[in-house]
Amino acid sequence: MLVNYPNGTKPKQSYIMHGNRGMSLESDINETNQYYLVHDIAVIYKKPTPITVVKVDFKSRIDAVINEAYYRTPSTTDYNGVYKGKYIDFEAKETKNKSFFPLANIHTHQIEHIKRIMEHGGIGFIIVRFTHYNLTYFLDGSKLISFIENNKRKSIPISYFQTYGKIIETKYAPRLDYLKVLDEYSQEGDHIEQSP
Amino acid sequence: MLVNYPNGTKPKQSYIMHGNRGMSLESDINETNQYYLVHDIAVIYKKPTPITVVKVDFKSRIDAVINEAYYRTPSTTDYNGVYKGKYIDFEAKETKNKSFFPLANIHTHQIEHIKRIMEHGGIGFIIVRFTHYNLTYFLDGSKLISFIENNKRKSIPISYFQTYGKIIETKYAPRLDYLKVLDEYSQEGDHIEQSP
Repeated sequence: MLVNYPNGTKPKQSYIMHGNRGMSLESDINETNQYYLVHDIAVIYKKPTPITVVKVDFKSRIDAVINEAYYRTPSTTDYNGVYKGKYIDFEAKETKNKSFFPLANIHTHQIEHIKRIMEHGGIGFIIVRFTHYNLTYFLDGSKLISFIENNKRKSIPISYFQTYGKIIETKYAPRLDYLKVLDEYSQEGDHIEQSP
Repeated sequence: MLVNYPNGTKPKQSYIMHGNRGMSLESDINETNQYYLVHDIAVIYKKPTPITVVKVDFKSRIDAVINEAYYRTPSTTDYNGVYKGKYIDFEAKETKNKSFFPLANIHTHQIEHIKRIMEHGGIGFIIVRFTHYNLTYFLDGSKLISFIENNKRKSIPISYFQTYGKIIETKYAPRLDYLKVLDEYSQEGDHIEQSP
């Protein structure tokens, strides 16, 4: 499926068009993943944006130039990798909304993907930043799925993150230590693994 | 780093330029992954090809058209996912060579990536098809790394695959049941897990 933009919305509405602010959660996570890699903590990467290439120019001596291509809707989440032998999979989103995280920010098949990951013994979660407060939350996949299956509303109130999620503090290095928060969450007894 | 083509070779030499034959291992694996997904066996995807977008045209009412973009060298392998709670990571390559698999087909940082994955408790391997014989081999990451660290030669002889690898048969469905071969390999005592 070809879409206007990676998140399926029109460019004007797109979260990645808001300049530095819109990119900062992504760059915080990329920096953190780089820190995890260099310090031998985990191997987690952002997947490339899915693009359908239509025309490539091979005439140029140095580069193959892609002259026509389109963004595709992603089938999976943006980030995955391995941590302590476990499969890790998550999606990260920012919202300017002060009270809610609109579920339109995550594709239905990304939510299904997170659910499937947990069913197969992997660890799935989302990271959501409320930019107005500069607060970043970890929310385990089980809590995300549970909200969606028990509510008809199309947005998750910030109070749900306060109750069931965990704050990820922004620091110097690692910038956004979400694996520490994941460890704390899983140690608190509300165990992350949902599968046998 | 911008390169001529995803595998770092010039278009004329590129494995994906040989039409149907060049694409068949990839499509066999994609079909197999789809089978695994639908039959609830594993969640494994091919990562999108990394592309650096330079110019995007938003004027068009329907689509955002990418007008200038370049292929990037991939940092990781092409495929990863979760199987029985384990992190799975592999690269798949075809060669027309009758006697050797040239290591130039795999980037140095892809090999380092496979090594790192195993150090973190994940399962890393390569799938290599010798198109001349239409034989597809599974080779565990430990055997790949062991060859590279103990040999100066820039290609792996097919005899090494015969000795240390395992044939993956091509069938109707799943097309290329590499997880069955992985299970057999790990059950044979030459255990896949290298880390604690």
